[in-house]
Amino acid sequence: MFQSFEVSSNPATGAPRVAKLRAELETLKLDGFLVPRADEHQGEYVPARAQRLAWLTGFTGSAGVVLVLKNRAHLFVDGRYTLQAADQTDPSVFTIESLIDTPPAVWLRSIERPLTIGFDPWLHTISETKALREALEKNGGSLVAVKDNLVDLIWDDQPAPPLEAVTIQPEKYAGKLAKVKLRELADAVGKAKADATILTDPSSIAWAFNIRGNDVSNTPLPLAFALIPANGEPLLFIDKRKLPMETEAYLTQLTTLRAPSALDNDVADFAAQGHTVMLDPALAAEKLRLIVEKAGGKIVEGLDPARLPRAIKNKTELEGARKSHERDGVAMVSFLSWIDHQAPGTIDEIDAATKLEETRHEIAQGFQMPLENLSFDSISGAGPNGAFAHYRVNTESNRKLQDGELYLIDSGGQYRDGTTDITRTLPVGTPTADMKKKFTLVLKGMIAISTARFPKGTRGMDIDVLARIALWKQGYDYGHGTGHGVGSFLSVHEGPQNISKRGTQELLPGMILSNEPGYYKPGGYGIRTENLLIVTEPQVPEGGDLPMMGFETITLCPIDKRLIDTSLLVREELVWLDAYHAKVREKLLPHTSGEAREWLVNATEPFGHEG
Amino acid sequence: MFQSFEVSSNPATGAPRVAKLRAELETLKLDGFLVPRADEHQGEYVPARAQRLAWLTGFTGSAGVVLVLKNRAHLFVDGRYTLQAADQTDPSVFTIESLIDTPPAVWLRSIERPLTIGFDPWLHTISETKALREALEKNGGSLVAVKDNLVDLIWDDQPAPPLEAVTIQPEKYAGKLAKVKLRELADAVGKAKADATILTDPSSIAWAFNIRGNDVSNTPLPLAFALIPANGEPLLFIDKRKLPMETEAYLTQLTTLRAPSALDNDVADFAAQGHTVMLDPALAAEKLRLIVEKAGGKIVEGLDPARLPRAIKNKTELEGARKSHERDGVAMVSFLSWIDHQAPGTIDEIDAATKLEETRHEIAQGFQMPLENLSFDSISGAGPNGAFAHYRVNTESNRKLQDGELYLIDSGGQYRDGTTDITRTLPVGTPTADMKKKFTLVLKGMIAISTARFPKGTRGMDIDVLARIALWKQGYDYGHGTGHGVGSFLSVHEGPQNISKRGTQELLPGMILSNEPGYYKPGGYGIRTENLLIVTEPQVPEGGDLPMMGFETITLCPIDKRLIDTSLLVREELVWLDAYHAKVREKLLPHTSGEAREWLVNATEPFGHEG
Repeated sequence: MFQSFEVSSNPATGAPRVAKLRAELETLKLDGFLVPRADEHQGEYVPARAQRLAWLTGFTGSAGVVLVLKNRAHLFVDGRYTLQAADQTDPSVFTIESLIDTPPAVWLRSIERPLTIGFDPWLHTISETKALREALEKNGGSLVAVKDNLVDLIWDDQPAPPLEAVTIQPEKYAGKLAKVKLRELADAVGKAKADATILTDPSSIAWAFNIRGNDVSNTPLPLAFALIPANGEPLLFIDKRKLPMETEAYLTQLTTLRAPSALDNDVADFAAQGHTVMLDPALAAEKLRLIVEKAGGKIVEGLDPARLPRAIKNKTELEGARKSHERDGVAMVSFLSWIDHQAPGTIDEIDAATKLEETRHEIAQGFQMPLENLSFDSISGAGPNGAFAHYRVNTESNRKLQDGELYLIDSGGQYRDGTTDITRTLPVGTPTADMKKKFTLVLKGMIAISTARFPKGTRGMDIDVLARIALWKQGYDYGHGTGHGVGSFLSVHEGPQNISKRGTQELLPGMILSNEPGYYKPGGYGIRTENLLIVTEPQVPEGGDLPMMGFETITLCPIDKRLIDTSLLVREELVWLDAYHAKVREKLLPHTSGEAREWLVNATEPFGHEG
Repeated sequence: MFQSFEVSSNPATGAPRVAKLRAELETLKLDGFLVPRADEHQGEYVPARAQRLAWLTGFTGSAGVVLVLKNRAHLFVDGRYTLQAADQTDPSVFTIESLIDTPPAVWLRSIERPLTIGFDPWLHTISETKALREALEKNGGSLVAVKDNLVDLIWDDQPAPPLEAVTIQPEKYAGKLAKVKLRELADAVGKAKADATILTDPSSIAWAFNIRGNDVSNTPLPLAFALIPANGEPLLFIDKRKLPMETEAYLTQLTTLRAPSALDNDVADFAAQGHTVMLDPALAAEKLRLIVEKAGGKIVEGLDPARLPRAIKNKTELEGARKSHERDGVAMVSFLSWIDHQAPGTIDEIDAATKLEETRHEIAQGFQMPLENLSFDSISGAGPNGAFAHYRVNTESNRKLQDGELYLIDSGGQYRDGTTDITRTLPVGTPTADMKKKFTLVLKGMIAISTARFPKGTRGMDIDVLARIALWKQGYDYGHGTGHGVGSFLSVHEGPQNISKRGTQELLPGMILSNEPGYYKPGGYGIRTENLLIVTEPQVPEGGDLPMMGFETITLCPIDKRLIDTSLLVREELVWLDAYHAKVREKLLPHTSGEAREWLVNATEPFGHEG
């Protein structure tokens, strides 16, 4: 099993560990120290070694930072984690603060006395550091980079850095040779009038070098850095113990391999030649800026040049995405058929998540394309648990799927040829009219995105409302974005594209996005329906004037008809639904048998519609 | 008649006038001089005295700037005016450039030799000047503020500044006393940590002091400046000859009246006390910045503090808007009925625009609420002329309304209690299926905006797509925003609110906006349907969770049913149309008689719809 349901946190460890940290503060004459939930690469997942925030506080959420002061520690988390943080931490030690309304850089601004706060410059980005420094200096205080992370000094059994094997992502899945990608990145560096850039995001390195790793959970990343000069050979900073012989042989054709410990000196040497280094202020560690500037180099700020080309999938990657979704659909159908054959009240959220992981694994084996990982821990929420949009079931929260409730399952797989992410909501027993109404309004939004066409220049923010307007008209909404970018056997949350009020990136053909409006009734139920989409090439619709892009839906899995109130749908929506179900049946039926086959046929019966 | 249809421009005057200007360049040792279509107040309409661009070049469009160099003059206009500018100017003197893609500050950047360019700092904003200065200095050149505008030096019969009477806008229309508004503005200045602001936009002055003027066409503005200190009495810089006795008596209760010629010295004196002056960099003339800084004062940049409160209409203004739209609707019905009784090919665009103005005038008189002005020159476009979104008919372009064509009429009135703006498109004879399809797709967008609901925080940019998606799906679009803000007996184009891809202003209850999607077939026809809307207070829809704002449609006039293809509409859209027409009939029928009454009854017959 990839997913674990254990409760791994204990509020009692916070007090003694914070006390130890305060002793270090004393030694260094600091008023406080910042411990973010971050590693040197600022990814969504961090290795065990970098779980400093969880170790120190007990809080295991995927985002947050604690500011340990002499008498009090302030733990900053976002709205998703307010309750969980309070639950997992000792209230006599920690005050919970809002990471959104008053993040540390805002909170510190409001403290009107001079504080000397330590931080680990490897764990904070350039932008973040700038904001923190300005906040402290406004009140006469200062931000001090420490040599060794204070948590590492007191964490006796801190895990070692991960050393998981790095594999080659072959051209038949990557679709483009690494040497071509690296040349294009070098050109982008030159165009930005820089002498080099340092890739700090392992997703960018994995993409550029066509390699994958296993250093963090759920995302096949090799933790590494790369220096890409405008002219000359790239340097890849990676522990050789992670490289099987063939991977090492492959990489040495593309790059000079350097030990991670050589990074500081190599960057300093490069900078000392008066070179200009491009760093992404939202991604790169402040430490890199310090190294470059100390050595006499110049910084130019610029976006990670791999970000946009990685988001625009090539034909091979798109074909892989389609195939991986076909297999994933077969697994989902098998799972949904199984769940429908369980009597209400007999299985729980963990049973269901376990069954789904097993099913994905088995189906993948049958196709000889193994399930490499889950693309994230499955969100398996029955009844009121489904109302937490980011719910993760554990042995304490686990709940039976009971009669008259809704069950929400949001899950995905990592396959060599693609990353999947799908959400379905189903009734356990007979749903209420209220549930059907909300489900159908959410569905209207999902269909509106699925059927949208749009001209060049349209950004995610321009179309977000299409997913919401049916809900808004009735006084409902959902508190998350409509869609996120998805990687190709990489992160299930990938920028820069998204569909939300903050989606400023223009949508471009080949991008993959999720389409997942929802509705959440606190204490009642959660509803979300999610398909993945590919942005299609612009084409002039028949009889039209202008080329329009659109979306190709690649997720293949029935949408539960028992929850649809067809009186709330218009003809165009019914036509889309029937066509979608016909495609699902056509693609999945050949790979489905027995009970699941019967279930699929039934689940994809057309509604029929006039005209 | 307010509107004139004369062709007032002659391309032949350009060459000798530019030659005279070049002699002035010689004297001042300048390489060039900038002449924008702007006065000291940066408004949409400028008085005759400030029509320097038209006088110098022949180009009479409402936006543009000419850069006269020693050997060539470059006239920058936007896409609306490319053809018109070429038509109105002498090609041996002027090169037409794009004001959007390569405005002067971009164009000058690409000239790689040092140029010394003169400009009149009263006619360029702070932001604009900064961009121009940076562009010139990049190439070693410089931007030089001239003492006297070079056009004024050579324009012998330049008109004098306008001296039209200023009237009081009484509380029964303004809804809020000027002394209260002025106090709130002073508070806003204090909050921005400034000692004063200078209002340079006559709309802000008209609003704040509850006065109206007649110094420019179409908008009831008194050209004036005001200095609003955080503490103490405001200064209003206005020519006393414009003030009837009662207006002067009224204003002296609120402010110290100063002559326009005292502005420089008064601002300098104020600044010399070490004061900080808030200026809106997008509105205020560079000259004001120069005066303040030269005198030792400090500038703080901030938005004109009257902008947002002016946009959020109070109850009295909203009631006035509703009433003015009722009267305007009666006039529109009378006009549309008249036009339907004319045989195809018998009247032309000028006949129609003239008839409409006369009708508005007569109906307004009947209600004893005179038509004070047109809120803009009517866009009266038959057939292919309708395809120019901003078409203004003149005696040369004038065209008969011919059988089988569409006729587009976009017009509005200025009344004491409100400003109107309405567009209707009608068939002359029998429309084609293609016309009906496009008209209906545009209508779908207009209805989608009309029926939208949205939560607090929604910006204009968030909902723009609702007006476009039906067109986009078929490969159509329109090249303008969906809606603009509208003033209360003020400018028909009022910020900061709008509905467009660039609409970053949050929509707030009481704002008035237009809703005017369109479709333009070059060489064929133009379609636009426009109603004005009020943003409504947030309310929880029945059975809903969250308060939602929405729109109240205040324009009252039938939408031409002969152009609607009901097979393209869904039930919700038909319900809206029938309800809208029922309201139009209910409100207008009591004020309509004879032929027009019969026409109105027929035009507002319901379609009917199932359920």
